[in-house]
Amino acid sequence: MQNVFNRRWLLTSYPAGMPSLENWTMDTPPVPDPGPGQILIKSKWLSVDPYMRGRMSLASNYTKSVGLGEVMHGGGVGEVMASNHPAWRIGDIAESMSVGWQEWSVLTPDVFGPAGVNKIDPKLAPIESSLSWLGMPGVTAYFGLLEVGRPLPGDTVVVSAASGAVGQLVGQIAKLAGCRAVAIAGDEEKLRWCREIGYDAIINYKSAADLTAAVKSACPQGVDVFFDNTGGPIHDAVMRNLNLAARVVICGRIALAGQFGKPDIGERFMGQLIVTRASVHGFLAFDWWPRRDEALKRLSTWQREKKIRFKEDVLNGIERMPEAFMRLLEGKNFGKQLVKLG
Amino acid sequence: MQNVFNRRWLLTSYPAGMPSLENWTMDTPPVPDPGPGQILIKSKWLSVDPYMRGRMSLASNYTKSVGLGEVMHGGGVGEVMASNHPAWRIGDIAESMSVGWQEWSVLTPDVFGPAGVNKIDPKLAPIESSLSWLGMPGVTAYFGLLEVGRPLPGDTVVVSAASGAVGQLVGQIAKLAGCRAVAIAGDEEKLRWCREIGYDAIINYKSAADLTAAVKSACPQGVDVFFDNTGGPIHDAVMRNLNLAARVVICGRIALAGQFGKPDIGERFMGQLIVTRASVHGFLAFDWWPRRDEALKRLSTWQREKKIRFKEDVLNGIERMPEAFMRLLEGKNFGKQLVKLG
Repeated sequence: MQNVFNRRWLLTSYPAGMPSLENWTMDTPPVPDPGPGQILIKSKWLSVDPYMRGRMSLASNYTKSVGLGEVMHGGGVGEVMASNHPAWRIGDIAESMSVGWQEWSVLTPDVFGPAGVNKIDPKLAPIESSLSWLGMPGVTAYFGLLEVGRPLPGDTVVVSAASGAVGQLVGQIAKLAGCRAVAIAGDEEKLRWCREIGYDAIINYKSAADLTAAVKSACPQGVDVFFDNTGGPIHDAVMRNLNLAARVVICGRIALAGQFGKPDIGERFMGQLIVTRASVHGFLAFDWWPRRDEALKRLSTWQREKKIRFKEDVLNGIERMPEAFMRLLEGKNFGKQLVKLG
Repeated sequence: MQNVFNRRWLLTSYPAGMPSLENWTMDTPPVPDPGPGQILIKSKWLSVDPYMRGRMSLASNYTKSVGLGEVMHGGGVGEVMASNHPAWRIGDIAESMSVGWQEWSVLTPDVFGPAGVNKIDPKLAPIESSLSWLGMPGVTAYFGLLEVGRPLPGDTVVVSAASGAVGQLVGQIAKLAGCRAVAIAGDEEKLRWCREIGYDAIINYKSAADLTAAVKSACPQGVDVFFDNTGGPIHDAVMRNLNLAARVVICGRIALAGQFGKPDIGERFMGQLIVTRASVHGFLAFDWWPRRDEALKRLSTWQREKKIRFKEDVLNGIERMPEAFMRLLEGKNFGKQLVKLG
């Protein structure tokens, strides 16, 4: 497109610990034209997610890193402005994890899996929901808890980063599954929200004098399912309270964002696993993409029936993407972090 | 029994690290009489197993500790010398994990599960087999590998303490399941034996310059199942080589026998689990006791068909029990450690 420019964030260096503003630079090339079979979208919302830290590193990971000089990876939702694809029309709403930290994106709808493009019906829910409870975080919470954690009615389910995009859904789905849900977070306001949405008990990991004892006290029957979004000392405290045959879902490690790439040294729990015969499962939502629609349909029904609620934290403007990401890594966001464009 | 004395080892103190001779004392009370429903056996063989370290500690565990002044826990097999139970006759051979480190034991046959008493047919196999491949270590290897590790044909299965009582069976069962089996041990003679019984590749963890690289080299297709009997740095090296969806069976931690009760500090693998979506399973053979006969029947068939072989390491005399146990913890035994009595 002539005379229309695309503001976008390029990754310019890999951080050693916590990312900082210097790791990105903004450039403003002309908006590209879509190729054959492609569409051009103008994003209205960009997603900000912990996984992005993993893309800013050459350490081995489940998918490739962002190359230096490339547009930073990320999901978004926006309006189709040009289409060379028969199934897409101008004005359609498209959501994709291939959007990137930029205002305009060329997308290829005929790609399957997490890199693909989803058509969003704006009448069903606000379109930004496709980045949160009705999108990847929803799929993560649904399959991570129900298929990997496999909670039984009456089980105690502990969730770290309990008010986060994934955590707040895990707690509410655990309640729908007949479980006792216990929230761990580091902020009283976040924990009040956790109470509001149905968590039965809350733990402030920052103010607890003895976190292991706090978990024990909040889980008098022990921990049957631990949905771990943080890693680190929170993880250790919950692991010391596992029940027989407990299931631990390792979903994220946001507590370790500042030491990414360095070996994570600390207490190991293999003895605890033998004693409890618990299991620890690495989890990635992408493995469940073939069943994505199932999760979204259920979440949608629950939301319509007012059985789940969801909190978002919105900053405005593409220029604030690095800031939004860094506050997420520091736990300063309250709910799903989004950036609204335009 | 008048004028007949029972030599037995009592636990007198809990070791802080590695056990030493001072942790036990021998006494020689008269041989007890069996009560109603009980039998008296004179042991012919005693079993020496890594789990005994866990009983010498007040740290939480899957079963109760040996109390100070009590007979040290352990399994054995012997001849019935007196019986107050209708199903047992003098001369029958009884195996039980409730025998203890002593020459004579009163047992209660009408107990189910791991504490129970099994009648052994001496025509089927040498009776000491009931303490090794045709007993608890066999059940451990069979269910731990096949039901928890769930290997598929073509999988690479790595076994630590590969020539030990459990390890040598795991390697051979892995071969029967169509897998590539890789042995880790710390002694060339043990590794030669691993080769003889069918392991496809061997790793000497003591002589490897870079253990992670050695695992990688021995497992060019990566590791699908890791049957871990040791913990510690061997564990770390294998964890760095996991394949997608790998299964890790935590069966034992003999490398940590010297630091029992202390927290196990070291590299944590939660990031690796997310990248690979692997799972780590604490395993205890006792959970599979209801299916014990299934394992023993299969093992028996395989042994008869000369598909599995088994090495034992025998010391003679009740007075050598502490020594036998300590050499096991130090990895100085070669094959299943047994003590022959009388």
